[in-house]
Amino acid sequence: MSAKILSGTDLSAEIRSEVATGVVEMQEKHGVTPGLAVILVGGDPASAVYVNNKQRACEQAGLFSDSAQLPDTATEDEILAAVHAFNEDPRVHGILVQLPLPGGIEQHRIIESIDPDKDVDGIHPYNLGKLMQGRPDFPPCTPAGIVELLVRNGHDPEGANVVICGRSDIVGKPLAALLMQRGRGGNATVTVCHTRTRDLADVTREADILVAAIGRPEAITADMVRDAAVVIDVGINRVDDPSARRGYRLKGDVDYEAVSQKALAITPVPGGVGPMTIAMLLVNTLTAARIRIHGRHHSG
Amino acid sequence: MSAKILSGTDLSAEIRSEVATGVVEMQEKHGVTPGLAVILVGGDPASAVYVNNKQRACEQAGLFSDSAQLPDTATEDEILAAVHAFNEDPRVHGILVQLPLPGGIEQHRIIESIDPDKDVDGIHPYNLGKLMQGRPDFPPCTPAGIVELLVRNGHDPEGANVVICGRSDIVGKPLAALLMQRGRGGNATVTVCHTRTRDLADVTREADILVAAIGRPEAITADMVRDAAVVIDVGINRVDDPSARRGYRLKGDVDYEAVSQKALAITPVPGGVGPMTIAMLLVNTLTAARIRIHGRHHSG
Repeated sequence: MSAKILSGTDLSAEIRSEVATGVVEMQEKHGVTPGLAVILVGGDPASAVYVNNKQRACEQAGLFSDSAQLPDTATEDEILAAVHAFNEDPRVHGILVQLPLPGGIEQHRIIESIDPDKDVDGIHPYNLGKLMQGRPDFPPCTPAGIVELLVRNGHDPEGANVVICGRSDIVGKPLAALLMQRGRGGNATVTVCHTRTRDLADVTREADILVAAIGRPEAITADMVRDAAVVIDVGINRVDDPSARRGYRLKGDVDYEAVSQKALAITPVPGGVGPMTIAMLLVNTLTAARIRIHGRHHSG
Repeated sequence: MSAKILSGTDLSAEIRSEVATGVVEMQEKHGVTPGLAVILVGGDPASAVYVNNKQRACEQAGLFSDSAQLPDTATEDEILAAVHAFNEDPRVHGILVQLPLPGGIEQHRIIESIDPDKDVDGIHPYNLGKLMQGRPDFPPCTPAGIVELLVRNGHDPEGANVVICGRSDIVGKPLAALLMQRGRGGNATVTVCHTRTRDLADVTREADILVAAIGRPEAITADMVRDAAVVIDVGINRVDDPSARRGYRLKGDVDYEAVSQKALAITPVPGGVGPMTIAMLLVNTLTAARIRIHGRHHSG
């Protein structure tokens, strides 16, 4: 049996088109265009690619998009000033600070300077706390994208044993928080594993839905996966490959060839979780604009 | 074999005495007495008992203690005013709003009005978010008490399979967040179960450490517990008992008689987790005073 491929490319296109419809409606009814501002510090090429992709996605969905590009040498105060300017800018409903920030910058201080009502990445502690309470305005984009991939492909996590490998602040921990809540996309029995988990394979083999967010190529092998599990691969690892045009290939955290023979469904890398993250950023930006127009009671 | 009893009464006395020592030191070095203010709305007798216990514990440990008692008929604005007064009161380092609040009061609005630097219950979303990031100033008191009960009795959760039954905002979810972090009292492989978990016994039998926070008397029976597991019982349920002086007895969420024959260690009810909650409230209040004196870098 070969697993069904859960295409994030396809689903994200669908969601981005829903956002585009929402944007047109908002412009017609309220004369408002939702806007996203991205702050990029330093010249890391991978970060620059991500930022470009986000801006292009904004434009395609009809959102206003702005950015601030600061040099590697930017001070904490200069970054704070850039955040502050977008906090005050009425055209901007969402602010994203591209992480990681250069060494020496106190990342938490920058994140906490973002107006929580514009924190469309959902990484301000206030928003993480609301997420833990099951009432997020802005669920973090990668976890939210994973939930959409599951629910809209008929793999509702309700009642399922979900095992998450990885406990990062932007994927593992907020995804666990989302999946254990009451309501749509929730009600899963969630286990979080990490480097200190004693027998990882013992735990992963119990998973109806297995999420790999480890950051190591092909860390999840076929013997770690239960028959007919649904496998979500969050990893994007560069692996040297002299035969490839760029000298490397992208590999996920899952041994795709072997696991896809065993799983019921699996996300590819690239084209799986990655595109969903950007789509959910647009959704959250539209939500931020809705909240500013209607207040929280009409934002659902 | 009969399980070792993990006495919260004994350990909380030890911790309260550590707090008392810290209070004397703070008075000598800085002339500051840490202070806790409790807000009680309405006349629920159980809540009144909790509030009295907290105030007595404060006084015994040498803390300053204050309270505001509002009638059942108090409006949201009146409760907000009481919180605001304590936010502004320099003698007060910690504020606790006794939950639940009477119906009709928007609980989240009250909680979010507490100055996060005085939120010694650790329930403001900002503090829950910092908890999720693994850098809490004020870990919520019941979860923090459970971690102390484990660590100080030689049952370090590191590497253990911990199963938590219950997903409340004040016990299950923040306890999961604490136990999955790096560092002391963390590094556990954590699973959170709840009413929608498919086969609860299947999951609980995998637990090296089992935490019951369900709110139903004796919901955890012996067949649900692995041999030599460590069992933490968070439940405090009143069960009718005409032979008892008050007409009821307190029962935990665990069938204590049967499970204690099988477990390696177990907390009793009463005298287990309950007293730990109050002790950790005092610890957090002392921490709040330390942070105000030294700032965050010296608060560890």
